[in-house]
Parts: sequence; C-alpha cells; structure tokens
Amino acid sequence: MTDAPLAPGAWIGILGGGQLGRMLAMAAARLGYRVHIYDPDPQAPAADTAARFTCAPWTDVAALSDLAASVAVVTYEFENVPPASLDAIEALAPIRPNRRALAISRDRLEEKTFLRGLGLATAPFAAVDDMASLRAALEAVGTPAILKTRTLGYDGKGQIRLTSPEEAADALAALGGVPAILEGHIAFDREVSVIAARGLDGSVAAYDPGENLHEGGILRRTTVPARLTPAQRSDAVLIAARILEALDHVGVMGVELFVADRGGLLVNEIAPRVHNSGHWTELGCRIDQFEQHIRAVAGLPLGDGTRHADVEMENLIGPEGMARIPALLREGARIHLYGKAEARAGRKMGHANRLLRSD
Amino acid sequence: MTDAPLAPGAWIGILGGGQLGRMLAMAAARLGYRVHIYDPDPQAPAADTAARFTCAPWTDVAALSDLAASVAVVTYEFENVPPASLDAIEALAPIRPNRRALAISRDRLEEKTFLRGLGLATAPFAAVDDMASLRAALEAVGTPAILKTRTLGYDGKGQIRLTSPEEAADALAALGGVPAILEGHIAFDREVSVIAARGLDGSVAAYDPGENLHEGGILRRTTVPARLTPAQRSDAVLIAARILEALDHVGVMGVELFVADRGGLLVNEIAPRVHNSGHWTELGCRIDQFEQHIRAVAGLPLGDGTRHADVEMENLIGPEGMARIPALLREGARIHLYGKAEARAGRKMGHANRLLRSD
Repeated sequence: MTDAPLAPGAWIGILGGGQLGRMLAMAAARLGYRVHIYDPDPQAPAADTAARFTCAPWTDVAALSDLAASVAVVTYEFENVPPASLDAIEALAPIRPNRRALAISRDRLEEKTFLRGLGLATAPFAAVDDMASLRAALEAVGTPAILKTRTLGYDGKGQIRLTSPEEAADALAALGGVPAILEGHIAFDREVSVIAARGLDGSVAAYDPGENLHEGGILRRTTVPARLTPAQRSDAVLIAARILEALDHVGVMGVELFVADRGGLLVNEIAPRVHNSGHWTELGCRIDQFEQHIRAVAGLPLGDGTRHADVEMENLIGPEGMARIPALLREGARIHLYGKAEARAGRKMGHANRLLRSD
Repeated sequence: MTDAPLAPGAWIGILGGGQLGRMLAMAAARLGYRVHIYDPDPQAPAADTAARFTCAPWTDVAALSDLAASVAVVTYEFENVPPASLDAIEALAPIRPNRRALAISRDRLEEKTFLRGLGLATAPFAAVDDMASLRAALEAVGTPAILKTRTLGYDGKGQIRLTSPEEAADALAALGGVPAILEGHIAFDREVSVIAARGLDGSVAAYDPGENLHEGGILRRTTVPARLTPAQRSDAVLIAARILEALDHVGVMGVELFVADRGGLLVNEIAPRVHNSGHWTELGCRIDQFEQHIRAVAGLPLGDGTRHADVEMENLIGPEGMARIPALLREGARIHLYGKAEARAGRKMGHANRLLRSD
C-alpha cells in the first residue's frame, strides 16, 4: 500500500450498516467511491445506499475475508468486531482508523488508562473483576459511582449506579461477572464533544465543539456553539488533536468531554468513528463529518470544517421522534431519516438540524 | 391518491439513473424514502445508491409497469420516455412533474409555442418539416439561425447553424428528415438560469439565478450570483414561477434565460427536472435542488433555498475534468463525482463547488 489517495471508482468496505454506515456510504458515493457494507442485520439501513451489501455474522471470517479482498480500504461504524475477524481483514486490506484506536475505545479500562497516560484528566476509575477489587475500587473512588462493563456497553446499557458501598454485591451480580470498571462521580456543568479528523498525511482538523444533552443515557440534542470560554474551546480541540496523534489515527473521532464545575475539561470517552454529536456538521459546515472521514480514510486532503452557522441537532427517537417530523419541517428544519422500518421506543430513527443563526 | 405527504419508508421510482437520478436517490434516502431506479444502462450511476434497480429498455411496458406498481410516486431525470410507456406508468402511479411539462419540454416547437402563449419572450422561431417550410422559416427568422431537431437533442447535439439561406438543403439533409425548428439568432450578453420548485400544495420557491458558461454546447461553469440588475433578478424568478404555475408543475424545473443586449430576458429552454446549472445549491443553500425536488414530489413542504454564499460550480468533463481533481481539492473545493467508470471525452464525470464568498 502506498499513501496515494484512492482513485475514483475504488471500493471502500464499511463494517456496520446502521445510520452511521449509511451516511458514510453516501459521502463515499459523492466522492466517486463504491461502497461494500457488511452487517449481520438483513435490514441494515446502509444496504439501501451502497453498491454492495454482505449480510453475515461478525464471526464469519470467510465472509469478512471476501469483503476485505473486494475493497481498497476498510473502515467501520461499529467498534465491537472480534479481534480474530479484524486479523482476517487486516491480512487483506488496511483498516482505518487503525486497530489501536479500536482496541482502546472498545474497552473502558484501556481507554481511561490510555487517556491518563497522555496526561489528560478523566473521572477517577478502577478495574473491577470480583468482589475484592470492587471493594478496593469503592474505597479509592468513593460513592456515588458507576459500575460499567469494560466492553460492549452503549447508550447507557451495562451501567449500574452505586450510591453506597452496601450496593456492591447486587451491582456485581447484575453485571453477571464480566470484567468491569468503577468510575467515580464527577461534578460537571455540561458535556461537550469535539469531532476531529486526522488525514493519512497527519494533518488534523477539528470541528467547533458542540454541547450535548443526554436523557436516559441517549443523546437528545447537540447545540453549536457550546457554552465554553475561548480557553476551554481551544483546550477541547487540543485534547482531541493529542488523542488523534497519540493513536496515529486516520479518520474522524468523537471525543466526549465533561466541563467540570471549576472549568477544567475531563475526557469522558472517545469513539474512533463519526459520532452522533457531529451530525450538526451537515448543516453547519461546508464539509460534514461523514465526508471528512471518507476523505481521511481514502487519503484525500481533509476539507474545510469551518462552522458557518449556529445549529441545533435533535435526535428523532422512537415513535415520538417520528411524530415530530411535520412540526420540524414546518419550522424549516432539515430532516435526515435513516430508513429504519420499525420505530421502536428508544431507537434512533433520524435527526433534525435547525439553524439558530447563520454567519 | 390524496395529497398527504409520502410516509417515511415509501418508495419513489426514478426514470433515469444518470448523475441526476443518483443525486435525487441520495436526497430521497436522506428523507427516509426508498428508491427504485429504472435505466436501460446496466452501468447506470444511480444504481449504486438506490435500494432497487431495474435495468430494462424505455419501451419495456411490462418492466415499467412493475416499477410503477412498486412505488408511491414516479419522478424522472430523463425526459424522453415514450408516451406509451408513460401511459403504462400513469395507470399505476402518479408521475411528478406531470406529463404536460414533459410533453412540452421534450419538443422544442411545443415548448416555444407554450412560452409565447404565456407572453414570454423567446428567440424568433418557426416549424420546419420540409424544404418549403424551411425556406419560409428562413424568410421569417433570418440568418444566422440554428436548425434543431424538435425532440431528443441535448448538449448541442442535433443542431446545425445556418449562416445563409443557401445552406438550407445541406442542413435539412443532415437532420435526416426529422421534424425540426428554426430558431433565429439573438444577440445576448449572457445566459442565466433559474432553478425553481413548486410543491404539491402550490407553493413556489426559487433559487437565486446562476450565470452559465457553455463551451461546445456543454455547460462548463455556473456562478452565483449572476450579474443581473435587481429588476432582472426578480423578473427571472417571476418568469420561472409563471411557467411552473401554468404547467401545474410539481417538482424542480430549470429555466434557461438569455439576457439580451438591451437588458430584456428571453426564455431559451426549460427542463422539468433538476438541472446541471443548479448543482451549486449543494454548497450555497441549506436545502439543495435535489432535496427540494424530492420534497415536492413527496408532498412535503418545500425547504429553505436561501443562498448563503457566492459559489462557482465547475463541471468535470472527460479525462481533463478528472485530472483537475487534485488541484481543486487543494484549493478547498467540494468535489462531487458520479461514479462513472469511463472518463470519455465530453462526458460529465462530476462537478466541483467552490466558495467565492460566504455570508
């Protein structure tokens, strides 16, 4: 492999065919690439907007090898592909972003350890494998605290809040013995996120931080600009750049940060991919996060991510979210739906971007 | 059929799977619709970005009926579908924009007659069916003049320039006896176009006029804003609105206008669809012409087409166009490629939008 940009017409493989894969597929098509989506779900939303779709399990090494052999580069929206499957892919095609970002972001303990190693602030944490280590962790971290599975949790799943050490046994039992991490409570004013990209040439571009509102562990709303001081804003971007560089990351990354009561920034978590809190870039920037990611993994120069408007992004979740569409259209919002057949409660069906102010 | 908006997940059929169909398909997907593309070319660019693709000839009434039966509405990027095929489709699904717009825009004589009937200025013209009518036409229209086939011409094909009446016999022979129209020369400063849309509810929205530069009969460049006086600008938009309303048009229409030496506007031609000279809206507007068209044919409210930047759109034509890509990316342009395998001379391979100034 050289580092020359992929030629128009080249194939890009995407692991995961959810809404992120769907939006990546369309961004790749706009740049003249052909997309091969891989997802175990026959109803994967990205299948409708991609030139090729393989429906097979994450453990199907033969099917994954076929995918890798059919493309020039493999990227992903899904971080929990088993290592053996990634080995099979990597034998045939480069994976961008690289395996290190994947390995770190899929394991909360490795992630926090890595971030601390870079000198970045995080919530206090400790590894939990059994009752003894949970007791020690509670001692070190205090309560309230949250016990989380090290892997596979998302959108608030696999998380148990402890308000006192007496709840330790029940909490440990509820997790069913999987490796876990205890994270201490931190007092914070707000959560912001930085969507940043690093090109194959090492150049870094970051979008203006957005401010996130979660409800029930699910992102409801992102507003840009975030309420940050100029110093916080540049710190947030510098933190993201530091992480990208430390990982030799190629592609987009989402970095969630807490703004602590006293104004400091703590890294909550990182996602080595396009991120829900970056959907506002579709309306607020010339080049959105999806095209930025494809540019990076294809070896093209990164695009202009300057924000030219104030935007509020609202997730459309479940039947209630879908019911909001007529009103949002009347208000002039830009709607983006994911083509999912069934609007189950809690399911992200789409998002709406609304212009608050334009330059 | 009621006029209620299509529900998310509904199918939209698109006749024609070229770059316009491809961009329409992606806009429809963003709104949660599923797209069934119909095109005789197995390499149709839109096939890669649509949920379903039927490859069959325009005369295959059974295949077209299958398409119509599979969708809630049929729209098109290609205007020369035979009337019998449209009859078969219309028996099963509404066609938007309607047949009248199609019939008029596919026949230059009907088009000019319709425009004149609305009181709009056009170049002088006369019908040509044989030598006698060509002689009469040359008498009425004068030279220089252009003899054009009434149907099926595009990008300068099927057109012969006459500089004197003596060339009549050769020109007529060159057209091979098909019905034609002679159009008189008009002295004009520039060509502009208005991309306008009309919703199912009758509302009209027009984009700011763009100024077009053609070379060899092919659009090379569109720049917004066009060099027009405020009066010309509003006249251009009013002309487009008048045409849309007279046709009871639902969808986007491209209206090409000449700015005559003395400042008046003459209608050159209309296209009942998204238009190459509207590709700048991808960078310059919140809602681009492709989404606007899908909103209209799906019965959704039209979106905000306000221009928020000055943009230059450049077509990437043939191998020379593709060779421009690295430089355009370095300059910060936004590239949009159509996924065509072979960069033949004169073939539109993509376009680039460049920001000249932003609000």
